[in-house]
Amino acid sequence: MEPIYLDNIAGTKPDKRVVDEVIPYLTEKYGNPAAHFYPLGRQSYNAISNARKQVADLICAKNPENIIFTSNGTESNNIAVKGVMALSSKKHIIISEIEHYSIQNPVLKMLNDGYTFTKLKVDKNGRISPESVASAIKEDTALVAIAHANPEIGVIQDIESIGKICKDKGVHFHVDAVASCGYIDIDVERFNVSTLSIAAQNFYGIRGAAALYIAPNVKLKPLFDGGFQELGIRSGSENVPAIIGLGKACEIAKNEMGQYVPEMKRLRDKLIKGLTDQYDFLHITGDIENRLPYHVSFWVEYIEGESLLMWYAQKNVYCASGSACSSNILAEDEEDLQASHVLTAVGVPTDICAGSITMSLSKYNTEEDIDYVLKVSPEIIDKLCAMSPAFDPSKIKK
Amino acid sequence: MEPIYLDNIAGTKPDKRVVDEVIPYLTEKYGNPAAHFYPLGRQSYNAISNARKQVADLICAKNPENIIFTSNGTESNNIAVKGVMALSSKKHIIISEIEHYSIQNPVLKMLNDGYTFTKLKVDKNGRISPESVASAIKEDTALVAIAHANPEIGVIQDIESIGKICKDKGVHFHVDAVASCGYIDIDVERFNVSTLSIAAQNFYGIRGAAALYIAPNVKLKPLFDGGFQELGIRSGSENVPAIIGLGKACEIAKNEMGQYVPEMKRLRDKLIKGLTDQYDFLHITGDIENRLPYHVSFWVEYIEGESLLMWYAQKNVYCASGSACSSNILAEDEEDLQASHVLTAVGVPTDICAGSITMSLSKYNTEEDIDYVLKVSPEIIDKLCAMSPAFDPSKIKK
Repeated sequence: MEPIYLDNIAGTKPDKRVVDEVIPYLTEKYGNPAAHFYPLGRQSYNAISNARKQVADLICAKNPENIIFTSNGTESNNIAVKGVMALSSKKHIIISEIEHYSIQNPVLKMLNDGYTFTKLKVDKNGRISPESVASAIKEDTALVAIAHANPEIGVIQDIESIGKICKDKGVHFHVDAVASCGYIDIDVERFNVSTLSIAAQNFYGIRGAAALYIAPNVKLKPLFDGGFQELGIRSGSENVPAIIGLGKACEIAKNEMGQYVPEMKRLRDKLIKGLTDQYDFLHITGDIENRLPYHVSFWVEYIEGESLLMWYAQKNVYCASGSACSSNILAEDEEDLQASHVLTAVGVPTDICAGSITMSLSKYNTEEDIDYVLKVSPEIIDKLCAMSPAFDPSKIKK
Repeated sequence: MEPIYLDNIAGTKPDKRVVDEVIPYLTEKYGNPAAHFYPLGRQSYNAISNARKQVADLICAKNPENIIFTSNGTESNNIAVKGVMALSSKKHIIISEIEHYSIQNPVLKMLNDGYTFTKLKVDKNGRISPESVASAIKEDTALVAIAHANPEIGVIQDIESIGKICKDKGVHFHVDAVASCGYIDIDVERFNVSTLSIAAQNFYGIRGAAALYIAPNVKLKPLFDGGFQELGIRSGSENVPAIIGLGKACEIAKNEMGQYVPEMKRLRDKLIKGLTDQYDFLHITGDIENRLPYHVSFWVEYIEGESLLMWYAQKNVYCASGSACSSNILAEDEEDLQASHVLTAVGVPTDICAGSITMSLSKYNTEEDIDYVLKVSPEIIDKLCAMSPAFDPSKIKK
């Protein structure tokens, strides 16, 4: 059988139309967009300009010039966080407890340089209350960085309310929209964001291109200095093919989200219902209502997330433990697998929770895929429960 | 007619074998290398490991683990320069007058933060004397950054001698090998380099991947913090397709440089001879002996580089004024076109030199291409000379 890919948070299969658009830029259209003196270069320059419009269109940015292209979401997040703080006289940063490593780690590193930060608590569903943002903002606060949606537990935040607070208080508001873009409407104007990150690989583009929206009047110190590409914020030759792919992915998302998102939600809900109906010791993590349309995450009492992962892979179902990035760390430091900072934040009981699983759907998943996952899940879970010394056998099967 | 592309310094046409290797990673092989729990992810992980070996092989690095992947040469250079200085207690940097913007600009920006630097003079051919490096190194010197070859005037430096000096004095030696890799032998051990940058787009790979060699025991502060990819030096999801392309490009270069380089040299020399035979007021820039095998650069008395560029483009010959990156800047600041920092460094007379042209060949250029350029050059140059008020008409044609 074809494997069932449910790790789309780690990267989606590129849309065929994206690939078709990209390939000519790998073959005949190889010009450098900086070389606008001749047609081959101008062609690349124009294609990038068009991609900038496509990105702006999807996230409702009025001016495409407010979009710069980067290599991935981590880079976009780092440019925003480090770039804003480097030019600010204020030293206080607000993030949440469940931010991605590409937000959390830059901030933690800055603490050595005299910066301070507040980590906002989330509730048991992973939600941040806008009021907590308001009360955390101090005279010295330069930056609030909150992800639109969390890749590990799928929770969506009330970005619009938080944005309004930041705007009223005159604080830079950075939104990591890598997990949400292409699945939830993004409107940088309505959300009052100052900077916002998206990445092509999360919604059917190809790896290697991401974008950072930078609101007018926002000043950022670049991470790369060089030949002044991308308005001087991101020097270095542009990755033309991947940028063209990102543009096309945005165009497709804009036109088709209305069709694929409701269907993804239906399959997501079927999967959640099927899993929770089967076991009352299987716990969904993250908010059920305010949830990424493609996102199912759960843990099973006394069962290691890693074991679940391996057994699902054995059954040809590919999923993740937490975020793609944390899986990477886990390989080096298995301790983290047991309790990611996100699981701890939502208060999973560490005595009976030994790691979670994320199943992230794509627009390509089918009813049959979900039926298959629901069929093999009891085989896997029952086996693991039987193997777990801490597990009470009387709990198996409702 | 097909245009004749002589702007390979701004990006080469990808080798078809590279593209063939890359395309499956845009379509079926879309796994995230961090997701090594299942075959689709492991496939990407293994492919990247293989690419790391291919890169190591080309530049004679003993251990592939000393290679990290980045998005372009500018990023590699910035990681090296900023990363080394951030962790050093010493504050003095040595570069040359003709370094690329991605070396020069990071260093210039650091001057605000208490760093000092020495800009080494070059001779009229653009060569840096190793002795000048030796005498510029002070107690407080942390870093020497010298490009293997200059993209604007083609001069190759005596990296081996400079590397020996840096090693003896215990100073970090960074080499920007973006213009040379794939055309000149690179041996990081023999050159005694501490860090070295290469970029796929300069030798028939695809845009979006570059590498940084980091010698054992070298410590760098990362520019991106996040999920600890690439040994923690370069967090963020890897651009798998472009990295696979870089690996393949390295393999091809390793196997085939011995064939295509001598032929490129022959065509380069024919072009240089043809141009200088036609006009004694046309001046080649950069060293003739120690010269990139694909590189022809010149200026014509009283004629603007930009005009030459446009007229060549008009005749379907695509070339550059200076480096690709400087062309980009030039568009915003035309002053720079007249005298780039590189031309000034080699002492072109600014009263009669109004900008230079770079014609950079690829392994795809043919004898017919060069014959055509030599045929149209007099038409262009004679016309521009006739239009130039400062030009002495008696000089036209030898």
